[in-house]
Amino acid sequence: MALLYLSHKQRGEVWKPIFARELPELEFYDGLEAVRDPSKVRFIATWNAPADPLKTYPNLEMILSVGAGVDQFDFRALPEHVKVARMVTPSIAEMMRDYVVLGVLAMHRQLPRYIAQQRDKTWSAGRVDLARRKTVGVMGLGQLGTAVLEALRPFGFKLSGWGRSPRALDGVQTFVGRNELPAFLAGTDILICLLPLTEETENILDAHLFAALPKGATLVHAGRGRQLDHDALLDALDTGHLEGAFLDVTEPEPLPAEHPFWSHPRLVLTPHVATMTDFEEGALAAVECLRAHEEGRPIPGLVDKARGY
Amino acid sequence: MALLYLSHKQRGEVWKPIFARELPELEFYDGLEAVRDPSKVRFIATWNAPADPLKTYPNLEMILSVGAGVDQFDFRALPEHVKVARMVTPSIAEMMRDYVVLGVLAMHRQLPRYIAQQRDKTWSAGRVDLARRKTVGVMGLGQLGTAVLEALRPFGFKLSGWGRSPRALDGVQTFVGRNELPAFLAGTDILICLLPLTEETENILDAHLFAALPKGATLVHAGRGRQLDHDALLDALDTGHLEGAFLDVTEPEPLPAEHPFWSHPRLVLTPHVATMTDFEEGALAAVECLRAHEEGRPIPGLVDKARGY
Repeated sequence: MALLYLSHKQRGEVWKPIFARELPELEFYDGLEAVRDPSKVRFIATWNAPADPLKTYPNLEMILSVGAGVDQFDFRALPEHVKVARMVTPSIAEMMRDYVVLGVLAMHRQLPRYIAQQRDKTWSAGRVDLARRKTVGVMGLGQLGTAVLEALRPFGFKLSGWGRSPRALDGVQTFVGRNELPAFLAGTDILICLLPLTEETENILDAHLFAALPKGATLVHAGRGRQLDHDALLDALDTGHLEGAFLDVTEPEPLPAEHPFWSHPRLVLTPHVATMTDFEEGALAAVECLRAHEEGRPIPGLVDKARGY
Repeated sequence: MALLYLSHKQRGEVWKPIFARELPELEFYDGLEAVRDPSKVRFIATWNAPADPLKTYPNLEMILSVGAGVDQFDFRALPEHVKVARMVTPSIAEMMRDYVVLGVLAMHRQLPRYIAQQRDKTWSAGRVDLARRKTVGVMGLGQLGTAVLEALRPFGFKLSGWGRSPRALDGVQTFVGRNELPAFLAGTDILICLLPLTEETENILDAHLFAALPKGATLVHAGRGRQLDHDALLDALDTGHLEGAFLDVTEPEPLPAEHPFWSHPRLVLTPHVATMTDFEEGALAAVECLRAHEEGRPIPGLVDKARGY
């Protein structure tokens, strides 16, 4: 019985001793050249799933994403019985919470204006708004969205959320499905996107969606780059309909040097740093996935391949 | 009995009807030219206290600062029996909380680095730290410092505070007085200054203080410009001892265009916008001061003139 590890060397050096300690009966194949017996490979840990893995590894049972995302996997290419799990580590939600609250407060307190003024050496005070007079709306009400809403509550923001399935969250007005999206957007001053990337959410942040927000709204986007129509965002900023945006993801990444996002004065851009899976936490989460799988318990981070996340 | 109002016209237009409604027996002298009988002036609302006011207004009892600060008053020039009060409005603490948490998260998540990279069109991810592995230390444990500490608690930061007098704050390690300042600084990763400006706090953020912080520490300064030694901060940033700073106040304000703060890549500068006293809330706070004074109750925001705040 073996796990085939196909990811960065640096992470592998952290994973290997943890697997040796926690699952000593499992062989750890550290890269393709370490595979002595392909028939022993029951698990693959990777960021990019190999095409047609059963051809090489006939006894494959589960693919583990080394990160929290699985949108890089082509589920159609995977055989039905091969499970997919992603590493849901405790730190991911904490990192996302810190990043998104930073983005929300930056939008709330006009930080892009002051960054541009600093560059221009201009001292000019804008308004100071009160958090309790604004609504923050979160798209995506999973573990990350819930952590973000909890962190925003003490500031007194009015809170709302939109998701695919009904959820009751204390003190949060929730909206469900495409039918309720316009009502959710109409009441949102600061919009946060934390949706997983699926066929349904691809390009969801488009001109139509921005037009449904109130004038002066702002966007904090920490989902996936392919959810955002870049031109629609630039239009919404340039007409003044949106006041600002705080982005961690683009399509493609890295963003090409000639892209207008880099120099837009009302946009803050960070290079996909909202979260990173801690190597040690990821290894421990992977160990727990394998144990749950062996013992027939629910697997943490198990992906619904039909839904795509 | 009259109040002499000596501040901006726009604020006066908000104050006047509120005073007429709340204290109809009090005459509202809207500027020097409105003073019909100087002997009637028992209260002056102003940002800059007039020199030797008793000479002109022999029955003066109290000077109200129209804002939260009183460091602009020269207390030595004021007669002993003239009280001074500042407008402690509920929104001030909320605004300061939002601003300082923005600054703390910006320092925590290396925002100056990403602002500089955006300007240079460079996509390069830095580390992602966990809040629970960092200590945030607040200098100044009054109403504002307490509100900031409360807002930082849910992020999991370790919290500490330093002040002039002993204070017990749940989950906050507190340090008192100059003797305990080095111990406070040695354990602080993100330093927040919210001190009032007094003779004791002038220039307190100096080379000596920065040297007592651990390497890689950062500063969020929302106190007063005269508390900060600008050259010492630049040195500490340029030697790499401090990693970054988030400043709302400078000396002088506005900051001259040739000042190196404007273009420093590890410094975020905002033009004194952390808080602004809401005109209506300020008027109601002033009304409450006068009522408390007349009824012999404790006056909210009463200044200890010997201490200076």
